[in-house]
Amino acid sequence: MPYVNIKVTKEGVTAEQKARLIAGVTDLLRTVLGKNPATTFVIIDEVDTDNWGIAGEQVTLRRSRGM
Amino acid sequence: MPYVNIKVTKEGVTAEQKARLIAGVTDLLRTVLGKNPATTFVIIDEVDTDNWGIAGEQVTLRRSRGM
Amino acid sequence: MPYVNIKVTKEGVTAEQKARLIAGVTDLLRTVLGKNPATTFVIIDEVDTDNWGIAGEQVTLRRSRGM
Amino acid sequence: MPYVNIKVTKEGVTAEQKARLIAGVTDLLRTVLGKNPATTFVIIDEVDTDNWGIAGEQVTLRRSRGM
Amino acid sequence: MPYVNIKVTKEGVTAEQKARLIAGVTDLLRTVLGKNPATTFVIIDEVDTDNWGIAGEQVTLRRSRGM
Amino acid sequence: MPYVNIKVTKEGVTAEQKARLIAGVTDLLRTVLGKNPATTFVIIDEVDTDNWGIAGEQVTLRRSRGM
Repeated sequence: MPYVNIKVTKEGVTAEQKARLIAGVTDLLRTVLGKNPATTFVIIDEVDTDNWGIAGEQVTLRRSRGM
Repeated sequence: MPYVNIKVTKEGVTAEQKARLIAGVTDLLRTVLGKNPATTFVIIDEVDTDNWGIAGEQVTLRRSRGM
Repeated sequence: MPYVNIKVTKEGVTAEQKARLIAGVTDLLRTVLGKNPATTFVIIDEVDTDNWGIAGEQVTLRRSRGM
Repeated sequence: MPYVNIKVTKEGVTAEQKARLIAGVTDLLRTVLGKNPATTFVIIDEVDTDNWGIAGEQVTLRRSRGM
Repeated sequence: MPYVNIKVTKEGVTAEQKARLIAGVTDLLRTVLGKNPATTFVIIDEVDTDNWGIAGEQVTLRRSRGM
Repeated sequence: MPYVNIKVTKEGVTAEQKARLIAGVTDLLRTVLGKNPATTFVIIDEVDTDNWGIAGEQVTLRRSRGM
């Protein structure tokens, strides 16, 4: 009964991409640890680029410099 | 000083239901562990059904099949 | 399919108390939101008092003053 | 490579205040533990006052009483 | 710069299995979303079976019944 | 009433360093957002280097290469 939380920046992730992440992680846990997909939870959080910092600055700022 | 995080799918949870969850969890921690309500935090996250996976697929898809 | 995370200080919580927290939270989610217990997860984290701060200081220090 | 998650109520935090939180936490981890800013993540979650409980009630209610 | 948290019960996960989970999730995020592995974090939490509840009871109890 | 969670690798963080992190973060939230220290929680998680991945591999492995 694994629980997986994926956090990514909110930059246009599509429903189809989310579906692939959910299927992929669930399959990985079944393959590596034999976990039952029926009780595997995957929760995706999309975080505003103003609210995500790396290297001491907001991702918004980095994106504006093309990073 | 407990901290409780409740994650549910974003499917029309009302303010009154949230109030009942907060009151109920706080009371449970007071009853079972003697924790002081004044420093008990409860945070409720409502997650889009596209962003919650179970059994390898999105809740959105399951809902469309009446699950 | 709710997910609940309860964090408390690691100060002798018994297995029986954990069982009561799990049963109580699961029942609360069933009662308030009609959530299915079969897919309700509850995870309890016990945190060392050195690693929990409130009011800018470690709980360990507060306990040593009888708080 | 620290990971820091800051949760505050959603009550008008500005982009500039978020930038200061990110810079401040990153600097603190560098100063106290020698952690490399380049791999320090800071994620800020702003939580609706209906979804945050303290002392068994919603922050929304407390704010309405001037607390 | 994704952040992934995987929670599983503490039941003998090996270092090699952890390595496969980390490599697999990192690769999935690169493939599906084009995320840079250099800034992809994966954190695995192993949770005592007394501290994980499902269906209102501790996993410890379920394991004792062969579930 | 902020909640802050700091995750770092478990590599000999001292009680005194934890105290400085707790005091520093609490002070930052008071300074930047005017948050009351009395209801500011800081929780530090120390994560085994086998359980933390970056760039697709365990920190344990990176440390063995002097990274």
